Parts: sequence; C-alpha cells; structure tokens
Amino acid sequence: MGGSAEERETRASSTARLEAFSDGVMAIAITLLILEVRVPDVGPHEQLRSALAHEWPSFAAYALSFLTVGIMWANHHQMFRHIERTTFGFLMMNVVFLLPVAFVPFPTAVLAKYLGSDAERTTAVVLYGATFIGIAIMWNVVWSFAVNGRRLVGPEVTADAIRRGTRSYRLGPITYAVGTVVALFNPIAGFAIFVALAVYWLLPGSGPG
Amino acid sequence: MGGSAEERETRASSTARLEAFSDGVMAIAITLLILEVRVPDVGPHEQLRSALAHEWPSFAAYALSFLTVGIMWANHHQMFRHIERTTFGFLMMNVVFLLPVAFVPFPTAVLAKYLGSDAERTTAVVLYGATFIGIAIMWNVVWSFAVNGRRLVGPEVTADAIRRGTRSYRLGPITYAVGTVVALFNPIAGFAIFVALAVYWLLPGSGPG
Amino acid sequence: MGGSAEERETRASSTARLEAFSDGVMAIAITLLILEVRVPDVGPHEQLRSALAHEWPSFAAYALSFLTVGIMWANHHQMFRHIERTTFGFLMMNVVFLLPVAFVPFPTAVLAKYLGSDAERTTAVVLYGATFIGIAIMWNVVWSFAVNGRRLVGPEVTADAIRRGTRSYRLGPITYAVGTVVALFNPIAGFAIFVALAVYWLLPGSGPG
Amino acid sequence: MGGSAEERETRASSTARLEAFSDGVMAIAITLLILEVRVPDVGPHEQLRSALAHEWPSFAAYALSFLTVGIMWANHHQMFRHIERTTFGFLMMNVVFLLPVAFVPFPTAVLAKYLGSDAERTTAVVLYGATFIGIAIMWNVVWSFAVNGRRLVGPEVTADAIRRGTRSYRLGPITYAVGTVVALFNPIAGFAIFVALAVYWLLPGSGPG
Repeated sequence: MGGSAEERETRASSTARLEAFSDGVMAIAITLLILEVRVPDVGPHEQLRSALAHEWPSFAAYALSFLTVGIMWANHHQMFRHIERTTFGFLMMNVVFLLPVAFVPFPTAVLAKYLGSDAERTTAVVLYGATFIGIAIMWNVVWSFAVNGRRLVGPEVTADAIRRGTRSYRLGPITYAVGTVVALFNPIAGFAIFVALAVYWLLPGSGPG
Repeated sequence: MGGSAEERETRASSTARLEAFSDGVMAIAITLLILEVRVPDVGPHEQLRSALAHEWPSFAAYALSFLTVGIMWANHHQMFRHIERTTFGFLMMNVVFLLPVAFVPFPTAVLAKYLGSDAERTTAVVLYGATFIGIAIMWNVVWSFAVNGRRLVGPEVTADAIRRGTRSYRLGPITYAVGTVVALFNPIAGFAIFVALAVYWLLPGSGPG
Repeated sequence: MGGSAEERETRASSTARLEAFSDGVMAIAITLLILEVRVPDVGPHEQLRSALAHEWPSFAAYALSFLTVGIMWANHHQMFRHIERTTFGFLMMNVVFLLPVAFVPFPTAVLAKYLGSDAERTTAVVLYGATFIGIAIMWNVVWSFAVNGRRLVGPEVTADAIRRGTRSYRLGPITYAVGTVVALFNPIAGFAIFVALAVYWLLPGSGPG
Repeated sequence: MGGSAEERETRASSTARLEAFSDGVMAIAITLLILEVRVPDVGPHEQLRSALAHEWPSFAAYALSFLTVGIMWANHHQMFRHIERTTFGFLMMNVVFLLPVAFVPFPTAVLAKYLGSDAERTTAVVLYGATFIGIAIMWNVVWSFAVNGRRLVGPEVTADAIRRGTRSYRLGPITYAVGTVVALFNPIAGFAIFVALAVYWLLPGSGPG
C-alpha cells in the first residue's frame, strides 16, 4: 500500500510484527485445542471418573497436538533468529504457512473422536498426518524463500548454517509422510510415530539439527 | 483520561499498542475460523472419509476467510509503516475498523453451512461480500483520517505515496461491491470473484499497489 | 518470587508485560463475542434472509459490547501513558480488573438471547449493566492505587492531570448505575443509555475528559 | 534449526518471545474460561433470574480459575525478571509448562458442571486440584533448570534470591496436594482451600515470597 508492488517487494521491514502475529496465531491455535475435550454428561448409572477415563483419546490428542504445535513455535522462534528482514510477499507466505497451523484443532478433534473407533481410526490418523505434512512443506517454502540468494537473512548467518537448516527442514515432510503412509496400513503405529517425533524433539539436544 | 478531550486528541502517542491490539484481534479472528468446521458425526452406514469430503464448503470458506484476513493483516502492517502517531480518536476509529474484521467468523460459518444449498447460497455469499465491503470502507476511513493534512504520517512519507495509497484503497470497496452484485445474480460467480481476489493479492508483486 | 513479599511490593518494574497481557485479554474477549452470534438453522419453509433479520438482538449486542470493550481498551491505553511502574500487588489488581472484562461475552450472549423476550428483557439488561458497573468500579480502584501518593505515575504527570483523571473515572460507575436503574423500570431505555454512552465515547473529542 | 543440537542448546537468546508466547497462551486460557458459562435456556414456567442464580457453580469456577491463572501469570512475570536468557531446551520446557495451564478450562468446566452434584463433586474437585499440582510441579522444573548452575539467570540475581525462590516454589505442589487430598474426603473443604489460596496470593504483601 502506498507504493507500487515492486517497491513493496523490495522495501523490506523488520520481522517484529510478523513474529508477533505468528506467535499470536500459534498461541491461540494451541489454546483452542482444549475446546475439543468435551465435559462428559454422566447418566444415572455412570460415574464421572470412568466417563473421564473413557475420554483418553481426547487427552492423548490434546497432548500430542499441544506439544507438536509448541515445538513448531519454538522452531519458528529459532528460524527467525536467522531472518532479519521481511517483504510483503514474505508476509503473505507466512500467512499461508499459518493456515494449516491454525487448522490443527480440527484434525485433532477428529482424532479425539475417532481414535477409539476401529472403522474410522485410519481416516482420522491419515487426516492428522496430512495436516502436518502440509505444515512441514510450508516450512521448507518459507525457509527457501528467506535464504534463496540470502534474500532475508542477516550477514552473520553462515552459508553452512543455511545448508544445515535446509537439510534439517527437509526431514519434516519426509518423517510425517512416513508416519502417514504407515497409518494407512496400521493407524496405531502411525499415531505412535507422531508421538515419538514429538517426544524426540522435546528432549534437549535431540531436535532437528 | 487525565486530560481534556482536546488534549487527548492532540497528544499523539506511538502506534505500538494499537498495532499489537489489532494484530491480536486479527490473529484471534483468523484462528477462531476453524471452530466453524464441525467434526462430522458418522452413522453406522456412513464413512468418515465421505463425511469429510461432504464438508468441502467448510474447508473452502475456512481457506478463503483465512487468506483474506491474512492479507488484511499484511496490509495493515504495510499501512502502519506510514503512520507513526496515534490519537484517542484514531484508536477509536481503529476499533470501529476491527468490528467487521472480528465479525468475519460469522459470515464464514454461514457461507460454510449454506454454500451447498441452492436456495440459500445467494444470501450467504451476499452477506459474506457485504462484510468485506464494510471492512474495505473502514480501511478508507482509517487511511483518510491518518493522511488528511498529514495528521499522523511521518515526514518521510511522500505526497506521492499518500496519493497512491489512497487510490489503491479505493479499489477495495469497489471490487467487493462488484463481487457482491454479481453474487445477487450468480452466487457461484460472486464467490469465485472473492477467491480470485484473495489469490491475486497473495501472488508476489500483484497486490494492490 | 525469589524475594520477600515486601521486596516484591517495592521492586517496581515496567508496565510493558502488564499492558501486553491486558491487551491480549481485551483482544480475545472482544473477538470471542462473535461466537455468541449463532448461524441460523433454516427449516424448509423459512428463508435464511429472514432468519438473519430475526437475529437482530445478537447483532446489536455484538456491536454494543465490541465498541464498549474497544473504548475500554483505548482508555486503558491512555491510562497507562501516565503509569510507568508496576508492582506485584498492582499486577494482581489488574488481574481483578480483567475478570469482569473477560466476563463480558456472557452477559452479551444473555442479552442477545433475551433482548427480544418481553418477560426476561429486564434481567438481561440489568445483568449487562451490572457487569459494566463492576468494570467501572475496578477502573477507579486501579487508578486510585496507581496515583495514591503518586505511587506508580511518572514525574511528568501533573497533580492537575491526576485530579482530572480521578474525576472522569468516577463518572463511569455512576453513568452505568443510572442505566441499570433505568433498566429496572424500562429495559429498552436502559439499553438505549448503554448504546448512547458507547456512541458518545466513540465520537472524537467527546470521551471522558 | 540451522545449527547442531548442541549449538542450539548453548546459543542462548533473549526471553522476549518466550514471554510474549506465554502471555498469549495464559491470556487466551483465562479468557476462554467464560465459554464454560452457559447461557441458560428458560422454559415457560422458569425465570431467567433464578436460572442464573442456579448457575452459581459456573460463576464460582470461573472466578476461581481466572484469579488462579492470573496469579500464575503475575508470578511468571516475576520469575522472568530473574531469567535473562533462553535456549531451545528451555523453550520446550516452557511449552510443557504451558500444557497444563492451557488445560485449565477443562477441569474448570467439569467443576462448574459437577460442583453442585453430591455424587460427582469429589471427582470434579480432585481433577481440578490434580491439574494445579501438575502446573506447580512444572513451575519447579522450569525454575530449577533456569537457576541450576545459574544457567539462565542474570549476574545481578543473588544466590539468596535463588534460594528463596526455590523454597517458595516448592510450596506450590505441597499446598495443592494438601487441598486435593482433603478433597478426597471432603470436596467442599478441598474447594475452599483452593479459594483460600487464591485470595491469599491476591492480597498485597502475602504472595509466595
């Protein structure tokens, strides 16, 4: 606005507001997850305690999505320590990246509802994996755009750091694709892979390096 | 507060908190959109997979509103690179601008529910378009107030940049009005115009310049 | 934490995080208001257009609460231009202030549902007014604590500015109490007073000075 | 990202974005609490006034959780005045801390629904207490990690301040465990302990020192 498209593209600005907006969307998406956990209605011959226990898929889905989106937030934080400028096009790309992130509460709720169903578990886990494949692909798109020709990175970022970043981000879509393909044959195993990925990234010193 | 109304009007302050609040409202509105996508209840003779496929209007409405509000956020960001001060009246004006933005989840949910209905598609698309006409008009009000007599813009903003901004913002209400009028006769075509506008603005180098 | 209670009280810190948290709560409360507007279910002999028109109390309640909370945000912004330090006790006081602010979506939803009901309109408008009386009282508590003995205000804030602030904040509980008492006899008139207050504060140069 | 795991661990960065993200999650969790308070449906022989009065457990649960999470936010604020650096592992730890915080709306809604039920009150209060035990434990984990070997604290933080912080944080899990154990025998008494803790911490000069 107030400038030609080309000007807007070249006139780079700081990433402060982009980071604040992304943090906002991720903080909200992560906190909305709890709305998916329903307060059980307890009939006359039931107990709240056992009704809560039967809701284990909701708790599992909540914890998995919370930690996974939290890991993404931490990685977004790390990535933007290397990126120091932004352009209108890059803002837009970040919006497209946030689209599947803000979508996460939906596949999480589907997983919570159908993880306990033999007939529909596969569909639920595959939808879940597909969402994270989408996010992981966008991650690579955002990073490539930023480092291509060193467009948006600071002068202190070494070529080596860029190469290592590129290599590690490439693992994201692959690992989620493996989990999703496994889920097509064995949804429990696919789900276990997603849990294992979250636990692995949470451990200090074992994140995508 | 702690000052007469006139004082409040003239004592301009920085735009940091206005931008943070606006980012917050836009980040929340964009993330609440997912609550409109319902987890399907699958009966004994149905499949989750086909139930999800039948929800395509929800997914389409989610994506369209997410991208459109995201584009607005990026444009708000660009606009406020030119605006460097604020007054109490301008804060209020920005609140009135945010009212239809925070309203977006409602017409989005109406669109998601009735896009597949032959009888009600027109109403749903027109309501959707009318909301964005409202936002686009407020955009012009906010910008006019800020640049009128160079009230709130920085000294580095050229008269030319202001003229170009004014011209480009004027296109907003017009394009949404065209889409809304088209929707009165052919709602699918109106909806397609809104999708086209979002895609056009997303492409690098093709935004309203 | 990591300090005695007295130390915590005296060791004042900047208001940045307090403002950010308050902005966050107000931005979320204002954006959650839209969840109260329900997507109508249209039966075979109804029209979406008329169903939407019948929802006018929801739209009216949404707009009124959005503008009123928005005005509060802008006033919070103005107030904290005078407050430059914070203490643990003041953080807590601000949390108590935010409690009725975050409560606003509830009386708004009650108002939306019962504004059209002759039997229950009074209760709905009185609950609404009572909520804002509570907020307006807390406003005075927060301001008194901050300016008492010039505890948390900056050296540039004149005694006169403090006096004028105190006087204007005192009007808040009174005007809302008047509206609420009027509502006990005539809820429509009480509601009209709340609308008039919002419009009056929105107009540039007419806010509580 | 863009660095080996070890590098990521050692390359500490400022806590600004961690604090902003945590504030966001806490602000959203605290504001979502209101969604648990349902607008009553009033039948032909009921009154809205008495229906609202019957919802007292919802209001009590809302107020208790709001104040308790608010106190946590203020304490997080105080804690991070001592912490000046962060690492990838510490970001992750903070995400794990936020998991039970963002979970609070669920036990709050369970409490609101079953506090009035003789049969299920115990389960509801115990679930509520267990959530806060979890939060209080994570509080100790986060603090220990930060001060262990003075890893992330600033040079101005005295050994004495660290010791006092450690001692006061240890009280958290103990007091919540006491309340939860009491609730097993007398849920009303357990609930009263949680209310008393919130009121005690709210009073100036009486917080955990």
